[in-house]
Amino acid sequence: MRIENMLEEYASRLEEALPGYLPRCPAPESRVGEAMAYSLLGGGKRVRGALTLAFYRLYKEDLSPALPYAGALEMIHAYSLIHDDLPCMDDDDLRRGKPSCHIAFGEAVALLAGDGLLTLAFETMCDPAHADAFPAATVLEAVRQAAWAAGCSGMIGGQMIDLAGEGSAGTTAALLDRMYAKKTGALIVAAARLGCILGGASKQDMDAASDYARYLGLAFQIVDDLLDAAGDEAVLGKPVGSDAANGKSTYVRMYGEDAARREVDKLNLRARQALEKLEGDTRFLAGLADLLAARQH
Amino acid sequence: MRIENMLEEYASRLEEALPGYLPRCPAPESRVGEAMAYSLLGGGKRVRGALTLAFYRLYKEDLSPALPYAGALEMIHAYSLIHDDLPCMDDDDLRRGKPSCHIAFGEAVALLAGDGLLTLAFETMCDPAHADAFPAATVLEAVRQAAWAAGCSGMIGGQMIDLAGEGSAGTTAALLDRMYAKKTGALIVAAARLGCILGGASKQDMDAASDYARYLGLAFQIVDDLLDAAGDEAVLGKPVGSDAANGKSTYVRMYGEDAARREVDKLNLRARQALEKLEGDTRFLAGLADLLAARQH
Repeated sequence: MRIENMLEEYASRLEEALPGYLPRCPAPESRVGEAMAYSLLGGGKRVRGALTLAFYRLYKEDLSPALPYAGALEMIHAYSLIHDDLPCMDDDDLRRGKPSCHIAFGEAVALLAGDGLLTLAFETMCDPAHADAFPAATVLEAVRQAAWAAGCSGMIGGQMIDLAGEGSAGTTAALLDRMYAKKTGALIVAAARLGCILGGASKQDMDAASDYARYLGLAFQIVDDLLDAAGDEAVLGKPVGSDAANGKSTYVRMYGEDAARREVDKLNLRARQALEKLEGDTRFLAGLADLLAARQH
Repeated sequence: MRIENMLEEYASRLEEALPGYLPRCPAPESRVGEAMAYSLLGGGKRVRGALTLAFYRLYKEDLSPALPYAGALEMIHAYSLIHDDLPCMDDDDLRRGKPSCHIAFGEAVALLAGDGLLTLAFETMCDPAHADAFPAATVLEAVRQAAWAAGCSGMIGGQMIDLAGEGSAGTTAALLDRMYAKKTGALIVAAARLGCILGGASKQDMDAASDYARYLGLAFQIVDDLLDAAGDEAVLGKPVGSDAANGKSTYVRMYGEDAARREVDKLNLRARQALEKLEGDTRFLAGLADLLAARQH
């Protein structure tokens, strides 16, 4: 099966499952549910969710028990996009080719929708309807990993570095690496780990999966920068050139496009090498690295 | 021991413990940690944390294992205040007698600090350093309750009702009740339940604790409204009259001050009646209801 098709299969399993995790509130609370659905459903590559499912599949045949956990990571990702797009952050009006959440629903509802999706990730992971499929200690470890990735050691820390560096030329290479590792890398690493944890992987497999995801995540962010610097707005579904316009430090701006492209290839190779330490069929995971490196959006 | 002193004892145990749960990040990420500390530490009555500790104490002598969970609820409370105060929400410049988080740190950092505290609550509850004191299933149940209270069935749902009703005169009594139950009540109920869960309470005790907390939470919110309508700004540490200025529906505006005061007394009585179903020494919990009903800030 082609990698694109497998990624689409994972994405469509998630797309089917996600609406079932959304809250069913009466009006007027339903408005925040609508905003959550607007930002969570019908879009995105579902890379994080797919990683959880693909690693889980190394150990188990039936994907169903892992879906709520893959979905929870997509919720955390969607929350981060809503809050990033707010006027006080990146002030982006367009996301995945449609108006950002705060453009569609107003700032206050968008703020709550982000808060709601972050919280819903934890509600979904702990829901007995999902959690009872695993030992409590396993679920707790999954929740722990997700919280770590979302927190100050992860995404929030990365956002803060981003924010602090905006408009300043003083970002060092080490700080840029740390920003990428936290802002994008942490949740991608957590996605791989969740699949391993739920699947019952060995410590050695967990470590190899984490290495793979770390390289993949870094490459993913550099490709994002390349697309922002030279991508096609119509294909990308969001404005290009916003990093330069905001004076943001990026890998492309620090090293140039050629070096950035070479770094992606190097990281891609390292990701593949990490996979070799795993026992199962890792062809999808290897192909995913190629696919994400070559993506145009 | 007097009720005030016991509440202060619980609050000071929390005040000592909370700094230890905050992230230790390098600069520039440390900025978001400073904002989190600013809003979490040194202030507030710690009603939620104290409730967890007081219910836990019905079953266990040593409070230490429950502190991270009581602290986590205070984090969720602090996050909600930061986001509520943002310009797109209530736009309040003053909180607990000092500048709101976004006034002190700017909107972007305040947004992240709120996100950070919400996430930190889950990180703290799952941290092996805290979680290993309890069976994994117990911790998972505590996380579940906290996530439920913070989510769309709880605080976020309540905020959304609040937001939808602002400036409209159409709020019904039933909707106002639901708003109070979700916005303030849910986290207070979760606080009582967490103490019971961690302490190993029976189902019957859990139910009685939930009833007590539901009445207490509703009374607490009505007293908040009374203070906003007629309180002393200097004692309160935040502006008064903001509900009326924002056209918000409140119990006081719907029924008048006298009826609101009578309702507090009625709820207080019901809270005490709920406590009678519990075996242990509930004098602090009974006294707390009186104390909160009579509070001036």
